[in-house]
Amino acid sequence: MEVVANAKAMTELSLRWRDSGRSIGFVPTMGALHAGHLSLVEISKSMADRTVVSIFLNPAQFTEDEDLGRYPVSMEEDQRLLRKAGVDALFLPGSEEIYPDGFSTWVEVEGMTANLCGEYRPGHFRGVTTVCTVLFDIVRPDLAVFGQKDAQQLAVVRRLVRDLKLGIEIVAGPIVRESDGLAMSSRNMYLTPLQRTEAAAISRGLGFVREAVSRGVLDSEELVRNFRSETDSRPGLLVQYARLVHPETMEDLDRIEGRALFAVAVYSGETRLIDNVLLEPGTDPMEV
Amino acid sequence: MEVVANAKAMTELSLRWRDSGRSIGFVPTMGALHAGHLSLVEISKSMADRTVVSIFLNPAQFTEDEDLGRYPVSMEEDQRLLRKAGVDALFLPGSEEIYPDGFSTWVEVEGMTANLCGEYRPGHFRGVTTVCTVLFDIVRPDLAVFGQKDAQQLAVVRRLVRDLKLGIEIVAGPIVRESDGLAMSSRNMYLTPLQRTEAAAISRGLGFVREAVSRGVLDSEELVRNFRSETDSRPGLLVQYARLVHPETMEDLDRIEGRALFAVAVYSGETRLIDNVLLEPGTDPMEV
Repeated sequence: MEVVANAKAMTELSLRWRDSGRSIGFVPTMGALHAGHLSLVEISKSMADRTVVSIFLNPAQFTEDEDLGRYPVSMEEDQRLLRKAGVDALFLPGSEEIYPDGFSTWVEVEGMTANLCGEYRPGHFRGVTTVCTVLFDIVRPDLAVFGQKDAQQLAVVRRLVRDLKLGIEIVAGPIVRESDGLAMSSRNMYLTPLQRTEAAAISRGLGFVREAVSRGVLDSEELVRNFRSETDSRPGLLVQYARLVHPETMEDLDRIEGRALFAVAVYSGETRLIDNVLLEPGTDPMEV
Repeated sequence: MEVVANAKAMTELSLRWRDSGRSIGFVPTMGALHAGHLSLVEISKSMADRTVVSIFLNPAQFTEDEDLGRYPVSMEEDQRLLRKAGVDALFLPGSEEIYPDGFSTWVEVEGMTANLCGEYRPGHFRGVTTVCTVLFDIVRPDLAVFGQKDAQQLAVVRRLVRDLKLGIEIVAGPIVRESDGLAMSSRNMYLTPLQRTEAAAISRGLGFVREAVSRGVLDSEELVRNFRSETDSRPGLLVQYARLVHPETMEDLDRIEGRALFAVAVYSGETRLIDNVLLEPGTDPMEV
């Protein structure tokens, strides 16, 4: 695995691969890697000739009162995992490589970033779309893999790539879960053992939503009640949002008519956890 | 000359050229071509193996009360001029090709777009930087040529390309002038014969600024007085701004210390004309 810190060197490596006919898959991360990230790497490896992973803890996507300062860092372990997974190149830029002195260009997707996480994390998606554009322009991949857990991010990046004609295929990786159902996240490390046990109620609540839909429940408010029946009884959990939305536009839906996304953000103490389930009436719902 | 309306077809043509080792120069325009545009084409042809010109009247860079609806269109004559100039491809997209249904991604350069034209045309540069990013991603050029007449646009596009790591060389084309000094612009067509005569005072005023600097005048206010001594006596001319700024950051300067840009916007009736001169004390000033 080549470890590349310099943006120009990364672009040159990618162009060498392209010139020799190799396709490039890309998995951008913020480090603190877990099995969810590694599943995205596996998808990239199965679809492309070369796989590039980036680790960049992007300050621009954290709001002021968030956990940038204590976000977990495990660089040695991350590198060990990526080598073992057979990644071809790790792009590991310093902050000045991505945001040089005088950096002042911002990429923003409007509308679909106003709901859900965008509502509660002002500026978050602007940081995501800006850094993704810069990383895409450096790595020049044919495809990039993003986790379905961050469903709004996935939809926003898809729109970004379409609108700016970046010519990159955006591939969704299914949510990877712990044995009790909790969606894998670098932030799960923040949880105390008690919080960790309680947090499993989030995916159980989404399971109730999925079951309700399979029984024919299509009304948004009733689905929210199904979800909250599991979470509201846990004193340590605080639901920030639980909403039925269109899976591409992120617009609120009153009821399910076609494909829909039920997305939630739940606080366990100071730790903010997100999760979601894709729903489609009349077909087998996707597993939670 | 190939005329290409479809974005995918344009990208494929560019990639074919790149694959066969040809470098690509790009001149984005809004049509209504004049000798200024053709000089940019000549620069591209002298620097790259293939030259692509785009004609796209970009609605996003006009503010609501501006001249989008009456902007001159001369498509047949434009195509004749580009063929004669030996352009390899004309990219001529429809509006839906650049802004498809649901388009919601915007690229913005902050800070340096707040002064000069940015101050008086809110949203203008956001439209410019968004369409340039989309056009660059479609055409994939090695270099792009922009006119020095739009000095702020040139600086903003340079910042955009640097920040987003687009890997495109931005080349400045010198201002091309009519025989009486008026900077060439598609908007000069709006002028009546009387306005056309008066408008030459703008470049004469910039000539006074240049001469004052060569005499050792470095103070911004005194340079503005030199410029306005020529324009303020013409009843048909109204100066919107006349400012000394840093040529890269567009920040106001109180006096010349290194390279500086003296930039102006002047109304003749309803027609807004811009012009500028690059100044550097102690060296031969650039010609106006």
